[in-house]
Amino acid sequence: MKLLRYGPVGAEKPGLCDADGLIRDLSSVIDDLDPTTISDETFTRIAALDPESLPVVSGDPRIGACVGRPGKFICIGLNYSDHAQEAGMELPPEPIIFLKATSAVCGPNDTIEIPRGSTKTDWEVELGVVIGKHTKYVDEADALDHVAGYCLINDVSERAFQLEHSGQWVKGKSADTFGPIGPWLVTRDQIADPQNLSMWLDVNGKRYQDGSTKTMAYGVAFVVSYLSRFMSLQPGDIISTGTPPGVGMGQNPPVYLKPGDVMELGIDGLGAQRQEVVQG
Amino acid sequence: MKLLRYGPVGAEKPGLCDADGLIRDLSSVIDDLDPTTISDETFTRIAALDPESLPVVSGDPRIGACVGRPGKFICIGLNYSDHAQEAGMELPPEPIIFLKATSAVCGPNDTIEIPRGSTKTDWEVELGVVIGKHTKYVDEADALDHVAGYCLINDVSERAFQLEHSGQWVKGKSADTFGPIGPWLVTRDQIADPQNLSMWLDVNGKRYQDGSTKTMAYGVAFVVSYLSRFMSLQPGDIISTGTPPGVGMGQNPPVYLKPGDVMELGIDGLGAQRQEVVQG
Repeated sequence: MKLLRYGPVGAEKPGLCDADGLIRDLSSVIDDLDPTTISDETFTRIAALDPESLPVVSGDPRIGACVGRPGKFICIGLNYSDHAQEAGMELPPEPIIFLKATSAVCGPNDTIEIPRGSTKTDWEVELGVVIGKHTKYVDEADALDHVAGYCLINDVSERAFQLEHSGQWVKGKSADTFGPIGPWLVTRDQIADPQNLSMWLDVNGKRYQDGSTKTMAYGVAFVVSYLSRFMSLQPGDIISTGTPPGVGMGQNPPVYLKPGDVMELGIDGLGAQRQEVVQG
Repeated sequence: MKLLRYGPVGAEKPGLCDADGLIRDLSSVIDDLDPTTISDETFTRIAALDPESLPVVSGDPRIGACVGRPGKFICIGLNYSDHAQEAGMELPPEPIIFLKATSAVCGPNDTIEIPRGSTKTDWEVELGVVIGKHTKYVDEADALDHVAGYCLINDVSERAFQLEHSGQWVKGKSADTFGPIGPWLVTRDQIADPQNLSMWLDVNGKRYQDGSTKTMAYGVAFVVSYLSRFMSLQPGDIISTGTPPGVGMGQNPPVYLKPGDVMELGIDGLGAQRQEVVQG
């Protein structure tokens, strides 16, 4: 299933994208798609419904982030072997973890704000993992059972804030609108192999990122298991699993976003995003 | 006012600690003390009540974290001049920011779990700041108007996870129970000067930390203003402002927590915490 949230910022409703691409309203089934409702049980209940029994949402509503009020927004750094090679860096001996402020979350097609004082706002197409159940000290073999599904994420990053203002990357990862998530939470049964998904990102029509989750160094199951040694995970927690080559910082010379730019990005089976860039 | 949350984990109710130290039930006034209710308006409404009109809570209930479901748990690293001196390190030229997983939050007297695989679980008494209103690009001069109040925090830390497992401190800061917060959210009108508060922490009755917010390098107003350049802040967001000298890692030889240890800590006007340590 493709689950989503639609409507104005802060007043999103839950929906289902049906086989014809129509949005069906799920408000009569769940209040929201959020940590209180994301579970195998909820998804089984929705899957048992006839989509045609649900009201079609008319018009062209805004699409929100596919998870409402996530408790955590966890990112994995430097997790693609070809990106590390491009950057002339060694793969880290263990996954690099950082957190992004949950206040950065926005819809997949919302406007992206360049923060005041920014000179190096950059892009990163990433595979997002949405946790489906309480997870603590889980083995790698069982880890994918704890995944509710997958989504598309643009891990928007300000490189000067991240790398040139005293330690810890969170400073360059957390501005408002730096976390477009969606359009859909695609349930895990729909993704045969999360380690074989093509992914791409264009800026102003030029392709900058053209990769695949095949070259991910630490795969989804390992990452979920690894994280669960250091913190417990809850339904609705989001893990952004790192980016393939082609970020702006990696160009020669580097290319950064400016007002008026348009980013478009996508991952096989997880839909696409389109963001216009403005000065914040 | 001293506001708090009491009752079983996940089912806490809001309360007021009255002049006699009795807990008065605030359930008839607000549903919870959380991002949806923390505001100047709520606090003005509660301050106008006669505490004796509110029911006394009998018995000796568990005290929960004084903020329910905070959206962010932000920490400032290496923020005391005497701690930097002790550690032989320079003060950072700008505040170091990191995030702690919100799933680490627990009550002030809850049991602390040493995570599996830990060899270096450590303590940090810290002044906590609770945000009271939406905050973005706020000037230092206006920043304290955005503070709802203050609280006591133990920023429990696993030093090997933090420093010896590939980049980014979050890995050693985020285990369940690593964030005891409370007992009270003390409203800002009760704290004449947040930069003049004594603070202390004992382990098994021995005093390890004995400091004051006087030696904080970047004060509360600066920190709130600085943070708001990099991320927006919302009501209920918690900022832990760093620790004075005397952490376990700083002892010669280092001292780390083991099952059966008891931590006791406090800050002037913000109450005290007591935690027993167990193996997780």
